[in-house]
Amino acid sequence: MAGVIRDLTDAEARRALVCKWGEVPDDVLPAWVAEMDYAVAEPVVAAVQDAVAAGMLGYPRVGAGGPLGEAYAGFARRQFGHDVDPERVVPTVDVTAGVRLALDALVPPGPLVFPVPGYAPQLAMAEVTGRERLDLVVDPDAERAELDLDLLDHHLARGARALLLTQPHNPWGRAFTRAELEGVRDVVLRHGALVVSDEIHAPLVLEGAEHVPYLAVEGTADHAVAVVAASKAFNIAGLKCAQLVTTSPALHERLVSVPLARNESWSVLGVAASEAAYVHGDAWLAALRVRLAEQRTLLGSLLAEHLPEARTRPLEATYLAWLDLRAYGHDDPAAVALERSRVQVAAGHDYQPGLTGHVRLNIATSPDRLTEIVRRLASALT
Amino acid sequence: MAGVIRDLTDAEARRALVCKWGEVPDDVLPAWVAEMDYAVAEPVVAAVQDAVAAGMLGYPRVGAGGPLGEAYAGFARRQFGHDVDPERVVPTVDVTAGVRLALDALVPPGPLVFPVPGYAPQLAMAEVTGRERLDLVVDPDAERAELDLDLLDHHLARGARALLLTQPHNPWGRAFTRAELEGVRDVVLRHGALVVSDEIHAPLVLEGAEHVPYLAVEGTADHAVAVVAASKAFNIAGLKCAQLVTTSPALHERLVSVPLARNESWSVLGVAASEAAYVHGDAWLAALRVRLAEQRTLLGSLLAEHLPEARTRPLEATYLAWLDLRAYGHDDPAAVALERSRVQVAAGHDYQPGLTGHVRLNIATSPDRLTEIVRRLASALT
Ligand SMILES: Cc1ncc(COP(=O)(O)O)c(C=O)c1O
Ligand SMILES: Cc1ncc(COP(=O)(O)O)c(C=O)c1O
Repeated sequence: MAGVIRDLTDAEARRALVCKWGEVPDDVLPAWVAEMDYAVAEPVVAAVQDAVAAGMLGYPRVGAGGPLGEAYAGFARRQFGHDVDPERVVPTVDVTAGVRLALDALVPPGPLVFPVPGYAPQLAMAEVTGRERLDLVVDPDAERAELDLDLLDHHLARGARALLLTQPHNPWGRAFTRAELEGVRDVVLRHGALVVSDEIHAPLVLEGAEHVPYLAVEGTADHAVAVVAASKAFNIAGLKCAQLVTTSPALHERLVSVPLARNESWSVLGVAASEAAYVHGDAWLAALRVRLAEQRTLLGSLLAEHLPEARTRPLEATYLAWLDLRAYGHDDPAAVALERSRVQVAAGHDYQPGLTGHVRLNIATSPDRLTEIVRRLASALT
Repeated sequence: MAGVIRDLTDAEARRALVCKWGEVPDDVLPAWVAEMDYAVAEPVVAAVQDAVAAGMLGYPRVGAGGPLGEAYAGFARRQFGHDVDPERVVPTVDVTAGVRLALDALVPPGPLVFPVPGYAPQLAMAEVTGRERLDLVVDPDAERAELDLDLLDHHLARGARALLLTQPHNPWGRAFTRAELEGVRDVVLRHGALVVSDEIHAPLVLEGAEHVPYLAVEGTADHAVAVVAASKAFNIAGLKCAQLVTTSPALHERLVSVPLARNESWSVLGVAASEAAYVHGDAWLAALRVRLAEQRTLLGSLLAEHLPEARTRPLEATYLAWLDLRAYGHDDPAAVALERSRVQVAAGHDYQPGLTGHVRLNIATSPDRLTEIVRRLASALT
């Protein structure tokens, strides 16, 4: 069954996805939080089942490298043509905690630059690490969602010490090109700043685009750390295991020498699942990307038919479409859609405080459900 | 099979306990990290298996209360006669992270008082939360391990804002009495300070002693938060779910209004396992406590026979015995025992920097293994 994407029934989804489906009333169609209405890949489930059967419920292995490091290094080589030293793969509980750890451990006090709209919980990352947040905002009217290098330069000149890059970007849907990342590198190098690159969506770059790990860009080794995970691509965010990857021995050393109390919370089953995903997940992942590209095409037709005034930019990566619905005249279209049509999308203002008229729509479901989601959105908004 | 404690074979333990058994060479008998060489209770394993079979691998429910809150409240009522409002039970990833969260969210800047010797990773908790650590040290020669209230008073007068209580205490092996806790309360109230009470070992109070939750002491409601978990008593520390419990609406409100990035990392299977442990674990837990009390008795005879100069205080709670081996003349008896006799105990200086001649010994294993552990210790040290 490797390579087959199986849609969950509503009943299965409600039982499996206790947040996405469980936190909304039964008559609401959920298209909000970033989880997929697909069964987890069989080798991943089997690995977790085997671990549980073996009673593997105690503390995980500690320290960098090991089978998890090897597994990720193999995955990075096959998927991204990127050479990672397995010994420089450091486990952490999840990507958000990994970003926090990297900022706490590696970045001196000072403001943090963050691309906005950005992943909602990370809007608070500056505050959580005791910093001022300086935004790289994409104008909603911009043709393309791009990192504003002049503004980055300005922020770093003002004293910001790090950029929290999201690559690929949620909710921009962008996979930044090598040339774009080289532009980032040049500005960052000029100021001696650091890049924390959240690459959780790396395996979810769709046909037509390519994932370039920030650390695969020449000249980034000494100023960057990547935070990666199998969790988003393999739909196992509840198992809690992510990884920090560095190329610089000095940065690695600082990450692994933090007190245990800063980094000891990843789960033993998250490790088992992540190893299985990285080692045995390629065929399933390839099929997933095909399915998501189909969903992307379907979304295009559905919007053209039902919400022709919606503006979107090309979805290069992730299964999260960013819709500009300002033409329909609702400040909070997500709230309107929920109330009038019982469909739950994510509100744009969660990703950019104060932004009106935008929503983020999760397309990782069945074609039927996606059709119904867009139909409901349209009937609420038009 | 409820209520039966099943010893893992060496092969099973090596596969199940990837930290305790997996991080030491095969010829080393492990008696260090706080995990038990017993199979996890059947209802807990079954709950995890059911969850995995249902594909429950995505994000857990968010927010306080819910089935986990109900489950813990029922457990606290039955086990400790303690009334907890289920809605005031807040999930968090583990106890150490919960302590950090409580300190960050509730305690103003200022030093932290910590009973020493103390749980090694928490020695760094002051540093991790940007504070100075002020120790309540137990003299190794003291007859009884007690909280020094005069010193606590002194530290709080000096500006400390909180006490990180460990109740029951690891590695003191103490379950503090109500009278002792009332003493703490009086001093803390006098200074308007806060108590973060790490009660992870609460279910592991052995015959002859009793667990008094700090929040069950009159007059503590407004200045305390408890951090609890099923993880230690049910041997599921790798599943990653703990809980913060408050009585004060104001403290609860501050805990649940932190940015998501500070508290979102507990695992969905940790929730399933914890609920099962709290709801269906009483019989197994009762059997466990009987077994641990037997191991405690056995330890006493073994020490009398093989290490008669070892000093111990009564083990009221936990399965972690604190041994004063100074009489045998080794600064680091743990290192000597590992090298000479291939037994891994925890070094006393990990719990109290600079302390010599002490070790912490984990008795949660089979009678045969405990016998062999003490035999090896004795042959190395004497
Ligand atoms: C960019 C980005 N980072 C991090 C996360 C969350 O990762 P975790 O649950 O591992 O913190 C998400 C979730 O969608 C995300 O989009
Ligand atoms: C007092 C105390 N607190 C916390 C812990 C660890 O808990 P967790 O793994 O949930 O952080 C231990 C582990 O033995 C402990 O003894």
